[in-house]
Amino acid sequence: MTAKSAYAQAGVDIAAGTRATQLMRAAVQATYGPEVLSGVGSFGGLFEVSALKMMQQPVLVASTDGVGTKTKVAAALNRWDTIGHDIVNHCVNDILVQGARPLFFLDYVASSQLDPEQIATIVGGIALACSAVGCALLGGETAEMPGVYTPGEIDLVGTVVGMVEREQIIDGRHIQPGDVILGLPSNGLHTNGYTLARQALAELDWQAHQETLGRSIGDALLIPHRSYLDDVQKLHNAGINIRGLAHITGGGLIDNPPRIFPEGVGAVLQWGSWPVPPIFKLIQEHGRIPQAEMSHVFNMGLGLLVIVPAPDAAKAQTVLGPQQVYSVGQMVAGVEGVEFRNP
Amino acid sequence: MTAKSAYAQAGVDIAAGTRATQLMRAAVQATYGPEVLSGVGSFGGLFEVSALKMMQQPVLVASTDGVGTKTKVAAALNRWDTIGHDIVNHCVNDILVQGARPLFFLDYVASSQLDPEQIATIVGGIALACSAVGCALLGGETAEMPGVYTPGEIDLVGTVVGMVEREQIIDGRHIQPGDVILGLPSNGLHTNGYTLARQALAELDWQAHQETLGRSIGDALLIPHRSYLDDVQKLHNAGINIRGLAHITGGGLIDNPPRIFPEGVGAVLQWGSWPVPPIFKLIQEHGRIPQAEMSHVFNMGLGLLVIVPAPDAAKAQTVLGPQQVYSVGQMVAGVEGVEFRNP
Repeated sequence: MTAKSAYAQAGVDIAAGTRATQLMRAAVQATYGPEVLSGVGSFGGLFEVSALKMMQQPVLVASTDGVGTKTKVAAALNRWDTIGHDIVNHCVNDILVQGARPLFFLDYVASSQLDPEQIATIVGGIALACSAVGCALLGGETAEMPGVYTPGEIDLVGTVVGMVEREQIIDGRHIQPGDVILGLPSNGLHTNGYTLARQALAELDWQAHQETLGRSIGDALLIPHRSYLDDVQKLHNAGINIRGLAHITGGGLIDNPPRIFPEGVGAVLQWGSWPVPPIFKLIQEHGRIPQAEMSHVFNMGLGLLVIVPAPDAAKAQTVLGPQQVYSVGQMVAGVEGVEFRNP
Repeated sequence: MTAKSAYAQAGVDIAAGTRATQLMRAAVQATYGPEVLSGVGSFGGLFEVSALKMMQQPVLVASTDGVGTKTKVAAALNRWDTIGHDIVNHCVNDILVQGARPLFFLDYVASSQLDPEQIATIVGGIALACSAVGCALLGGETAEMPGVYTPGEIDLVGTVVGMVEREQIIDGRHIQPGDVILGLPSNGLHTNGYTLARQALAELDWQAHQETLGRSIGDALLIPHRSYLDDVQKLHNAGINIRGLAHITGGGLIDNPPRIFPEGVGAVLQWGSWPVPPIFKLIQEHGRIPQAEMSHVFNMGLGLLVIVPAPDAAKAQTVLGPQQVYSVGQMVAGVEGVEFRNP
């Protein structure tokens, strides 16, 4: 038995923080390219960007986000290896839609009491996801905040910084009536709508195999947010004219697409033109949620919308392949925001 | 009376989030210089960095951090205008100690239930603090996470990105025995040690005027983290050879300075050479905390240590002026980490 310091008795364990850092060091360092000049433990992370000097007008693109109450699903199932992928892919998609590719990422994990193994598992997932998108895990922080967090729960926050040539920023300004809206499938809820989903599904067994899902509800809810970096890169390399990209996050199919629409043009999406994953039907049915609200909260099976001139749509489908992209609607003059048509 | 959507009934109010964004828009936009290309509401913030092209070897320096349970003090006093300054200045100091100046900042505020006015007050403080250090508030996120946060409590996370010429990175490698350690005064606890401090002071009246503090305990605990950007800039402009900078955060005077010490050299600090603010004496006395632990948790009145060659120490004191800097110790061969001497 060791004597606890006054600080540990107050609920903060500095040694646990140090142990967590040691556990995650190797995974983090595996994400380092030659641009990373500093190691774990520095005050700030150092990333050399001499590459920016070769660009005409380099622009940094940055985004901070969380994974919402998907953390509560991870806590309920005590499974911590997936949400690191969620936060990285969510953030990377958020800058991807402006044409940027990621340079580096920073994470923040907080809870009422630090569990070094749990933190190391989460950060290990973050590091793997960073490696997969070619992005350095440049820094991070773990915080112990007794009384702020509900015991057993965590929050997970990420920040990504990427770069883009100013001329190649994608911002939707060239979107025109008649442009085709392509939808790239999601893996499920990604990182949005979990508070509503958890409530809707609260009385079901999350561990049991569900025929319609092909897995348990818990497993279906934890499938990580997809990164669309490769898909967009393929479209770009094939010379597809990408006029707009919308990442479908909080606010669902209703609030996200209009963020890039020019004045006077809106989207008409055709229900039935893409498969809605069965988890959404289960949530809607058990939560008795109106269709309009479903589309305002969830991605409904579309994680990314890609808006292209009509002649490029077929080519995009050839490039990405069947079931990897759906033609889900088109841009129409005079429509406000997003409207839906039934089959 | 308006009908609540299923999502609002589950505890998440999208409209409140939108209202919070509107309230904070003007304050945020006041931080924008010509480099900021995007507005509030974009997926990611855009920051043009053509200035980096003029540098020899541009390096980005980034740091993510929180303000710890200082948020609980703000919640206890229901005062939300100061902690925005804490998070910005904490993060800016973390990259300042590597020689970087800030370019932009991103924030994350989360709670169990979104209060638009509260969030707007917090983000207003962040925006003011960003303006004060010449840094754009490029992006941010507010999250509502019922069940993860204790009702009434919040977490506040910030990320700063700055730049430095590779040759001008400050990393302590040139520190030598005989170098003088200058200490720049803190404003109090800054953003560390609040869990212990709150416990130590729990039975006192936080609202009453305290003679020794010249204010109430609550007010003393909420004084914002200082930014040392101006001080370091002044030293730099005066040609002072800054060999090392240590930001005194979590881990206090014990854990932070050694992060920049070269092998074989350590610090000897002289108690009595700087004034310890009375709030620390109050915490120590009421919490019955050993002196060694105080130094391991708190900054004890020194927010930043500046290590300079002995001949530069007097000049630094002239540049910054009396009570703005103290000569608190020196670097000594063979010392491990930080040792203290009594007067």
